[in-house]
Amino acid sequence: MKLHDSAMAPNPRIVRIYLAEKGIDVPKVQVDIAKAENRQPPYLAKNPMGGVPMLELDDGTCIAETIAICRYFEEQQPEPPLFGTDAKDKAVVEMWRRRMELEVANPIMQTFRNTHEFFKGRIPQVAEWGEVMREAANKRLEWLDSVLADREWVAGERFTIADITAMVGIDFGRVSGIRIADDQKNLARWHAAASARPSAKA
Amino acid sequence: MKLHDSAMAPNPRIVRIYLAEKGIDVPKVQVDIAKAENRQPPYLAKNPMGGVPMLELDDGTCIAETIAICRYFEEQQPEPPLFGTDAKDKAVVEMWRRRMELEVANPIMQTFRNTHEFFKGRIPQVAEWGEVMREAANKRLEWLDSVLADREWVAGERFTIADITAMVGIDFGRVSGIRIADDQKNLARWHAAASARPSAKA
Repeated sequence: MKLHDSAMAPNPRIVRIYLAEKGIDVPKVQVDIAKAENRQPPYLAKNPMGGVPMLELDDGTCIAETIAICRYFEEQQPEPPLFGTDAKDKAVVEMWRRRMELEVANPIMQTFRNTHEFFKGRIPQVAEWGEVMREAANKRLEWLDSVLADREWVAGERFTIADITAMVGIDFGRVSGIRIADDQKNLARWHAAASARPSAKA
Repeated sequence: MKLHDSAMAPNPRIVRIYLAEKGIDVPKVQVDIAKAENRQPPYLAKNPMGGVPMLELDDGTCIAETIAICRYFEEQQPEPPLFGTDAKDKAVVEMWRRRMELEVANPIMQTFRNTHEFFKGRIPQVAEWGEVMREAANKRLEWLDSVLADREWVAGERFTIADITAMVGIDFGRVSGIRIADDQKNLARWHAAASARPSAKA
């Protein structure tokens, strides 16, 4: 098995942190996304969407999509649980994971895609939409700060995939000037705690 | 337990079809989203994102997010499997489910949100972005037609949550003029088969 990885993109970082938390070691190959290696035929034959990361199994099956890759390992090695424990807890973790992906990380990513030089000429950019997303991202950080007032981690008492998703998304906001504000003390406390885990360096 | 439902929105339809496929009956309450009932305090106290559907458990736990709700039931009643069987199959189904949500249904929803009268004054609309998304949606339907050339269902041989997600998304495209094209024979065949299942009327 091998993990098609990219050191510069946020989604592969989610998988690397996840694997570090689980103590799972997977051989990696680097995909050069700056040279659009992931948008060319050899890679596209394995993942028509061109996304990185992608997990290639020994039988040739290619599993794309960050969360699908994490779930593959979670199913085989449930401990420590990063997607929840029983039916209710798994549902609650999934709710928070989705909120972190769709409500927090996605507007940050949309701001980047629609306003940053990197994507100029690669995709149709709509600057006005980028600014709508920037405002949404900043509002969501305010909201997340209020959520974290009464809990240690995003989904409750345990560090989960929801925290990984939020941290990676928020860290990626820096390139677009989206940052935790000085008065967002809960968010800052949570971010410092998540970043201090050894897995954050993976 | 009760399911906060809305007959007019696409996401609650995913849960209703899912439950019909599983043969699970859950009491429902209708949320009037045209009157923005889901954007007012009593509802927001249960789901701060304001999204419908939401599953309210007897202990007061509120599970928002369509897929989190489906996973709650999948965990309790795995048969028939709609999220896959073993680790590899579950990962493959999740990959396809995400592609259907993020690559197919999402551009359709974004077109609607940014161009339709319904959202005028409710959210910041960027018509130019709506048109970028409309083009993306139409391209993705072409791509999905090619995917379905060699398989019965989106994730392979079995009907799964990926099919439900794609069908509901595509059906919702009609209000924005996004439709399966006449030459997309594989997509049309798949859509007719999915729509003919009794669950499609749920």
